[in-house]
Amino acid sequence: MTPAALFDGIVQGTAAVQRRAMSKTITLLESTRTDHRAQGDALLTALLPHTGKAFRLGISGVPGVGKSTFIEALGLYLIGQGRRVAVLTIDPSSTVSGGSILGDKTRMEHLSVHEKAYIRPSPSGGTLGGVAEKTREAMLVCEAAGYDVVIVETVGVGQSEIAVAGMTDMFVLLQLPNAGDDLQAIKKGVMEIADLVVINKADLDKNAATRAEAQITSSLRLLGQHGNPENAHHDTHLWHPKVVQISALLGQGVDAFWAAVTQFRQLQTANGRLAARREKQALAWMWERIDAGLKQAFRQHPQVRALLPQLQADVAAGRIAASTAARNLLLAQSQPAQAAI
Amino acid sequence: MTPAALFDGIVQGTAAVQRRAMSKTITLLESTRTDHRAQGDALLTALLPHTGKAFRLGISGVPGVGKSTFIEALGLYLIGQGRRVAVLTIDPSSTVSGGSILGDKTRMEHLSVHEKAYIRPSPSGGTLGGVAEKTREAMLVCEAAGYDVVIVETVGVGQSEIAVAGMTDMFVLLQLPNAGDDLQAIKKGVMEIADLVVINKADLDKNAATRAEAQITSSLRLLGQHGNPENAHHDTHLWHPKVVQISALLGQGVDAFWAAVTQFRQLQTANGRLAARREKQALAWMWERIDAGLKQAFRQHPQVRALLPQLQADVAAGRIAASTAARNLLLAQSQPAQAAI
Repeated sequence: MTPAALFDGIVQGTAAVQRRAMSKTITLLESTRTDHRAQGDALLTALLPHTGKAFRLGISGVPGVGKSTFIEALGLYLIGQGRRVAVLTIDPSSTVSGGSILGDKTRMEHLSVHEKAYIRPSPSGGTLGGVAEKTREAMLVCEAAGYDVVIVETVGVGQSEIAVAGMTDMFVLLQLPNAGDDLQAIKKGVMEIADLVVINKADLDKNAATRAEAQITSSLRLLGQHGNPENAHHDTHLWHPKVVQISALLGQGVDAFWAAVTQFRQLQTANGRLAARREKQALAWMWERIDAGLKQAFRQHPQVRALLPQLQADVAAGRIAASTAARNLLLAQSQPAQAAI
Repeated sequence: MTPAALFDGIVQGTAAVQRRAMSKTITLLESTRTDHRAQGDALLTALLPHTGKAFRLGISGVPGVGKSTFIEALGLYLIGQGRRVAVLTIDPSSTVSGGSILGDKTRMEHLSVHEKAYIRPSPSGGTLGGVAEKTREAMLVCEAAGYDVVIVETVGVGQSEIAVAGMTDMFVLLQLPNAGDDLQAIKKGVMEIADLVVINKADLDKNAATRAEAQITSSLRLLGQHGNPENAHHDTHLWHPKVVQISALLGQGVDAFWAAVTQFRQLQTANGRLAARREKQALAWMWERIDAGLKQAFRQHPQVRALLPQLQADVAAGRIAASTAARNLLLAQSQPAQAAI
């Protein structure tokens, strides 16, 4: 399919045509070939005016917390309300192994076959930054195709939560009703960026879930008080992170969860923070890609490649100060490349 | 003084000559003039073989925790044991205001006038990365002059603790015996990197101090357990972060503190982690300076400067995808500069 045909398929195709065009477009965007990249950039720019209307929901939690079951229950609930739902994943393990543990569509067996749902696994290979970039672009494709809710899912390990929070309108952290789990989330800086904390599997032990809710509510208040003064808990124009208990397996609490999401969305739209967040995210994303590009070009520069091994060894052995080595390498890169030969 | 005279003054001068040569050298290293920078790099490389024998101790804590009183008590204690002590500061506020709140030598009135002590305030201006670089270089100058212990101090706000932990052999966090303070340190990722936590002002409320010690000990254990498996608490070859109570004002607990530091140093030397930490720090420092240099050159490139304002506005308004804008800017930088005119 030509880029023009992909554009038409995404923006005005039937459900089946649309999904095929989306998948082909996302594959094109994931390609590292220069000509594909140029086509992908042009297509993305053409699609942009059709994006931005979906609600972007980030969901994270450690393995075993029940993300798949929760997203399946949530997706089917939203479809039941007449909405179309897309699910994308950022899987840090896929950047290492080249294969995604989250990519298995059979995890969400009812949602994955529903014509109002679109599920795309994490692109494999590359760095977390690269995977995150492809997922951001895939999100825009889903929006151009008119999906109402785009869910970006990640496992609660490493830096991927920060990446997901940095591309979504709302970041939801799934927790188990276990003591100490909230400390891990605080430690990783994930509790602090959560707009909503969901205690899943609340049916297993109601008392533990209630204790966890009290504990997390208290942590969120302390983090908010001491942190950004804008989070002051008395201002009703601002969102104060909430905790809700659910049982995704039993389908309990999904409606209360969605009510909280809707409340958040309305508040953030009214106070202008949703638009401001998206603007800030887009600029941060641009600079992140610039940084990655600069570093890649630096490492590939012939004179840097020629000098780096010895300078790294000298720095490690304490024969040259790190800042001196850095200046030497930066100077080498600024010389014409042919001088290295 | 010529670089050769500075070198001689540092390595073999009398106490007074040495301190004057150190101060002049550090001023040279802080200069942004290209010729000064070249002289400074050459001098630093000459001094390097004389560095590395000091113990590098990082100390952090929020304003009011009593850092100055603690460092004065510790410094005088060490001098009493025949050691020479240097104190350097990293003050994130100095990078904004151009003046250092920590720079006031009168904070440590006895230590600052002692001939076996050398105190150097934070360089003013620049970014935190720049200030950190100068402090790292100043640390090497102090080592070349034969100081036994180099203390790098920072206030417990922002990212400066991470910078200090990244240039020292041991990172010590000062805490007050207040509930909730440990949560703030956990949130900022500072508790996690602390090798030792000191509860200062323990004399004010012994019960509160004991409660804080139990709370922090529990947090450290949880952070260690769930984090790096190498921190497993049963391995006696590895250091397990400790908590000690002191009263710097009354001079109580300084000896116990130093005993813990000595134990840490011996263990880390025996198991090879001190050398490994320094090697890792030097390489990370090199890459940090490379990143900063790449970004600076990028922002100063004529074609980037010409394109950036419009592209930033387009990204913010959603007219172009952030990744497309990033690629366009990177492409612009790779063109010959004169084409921009």
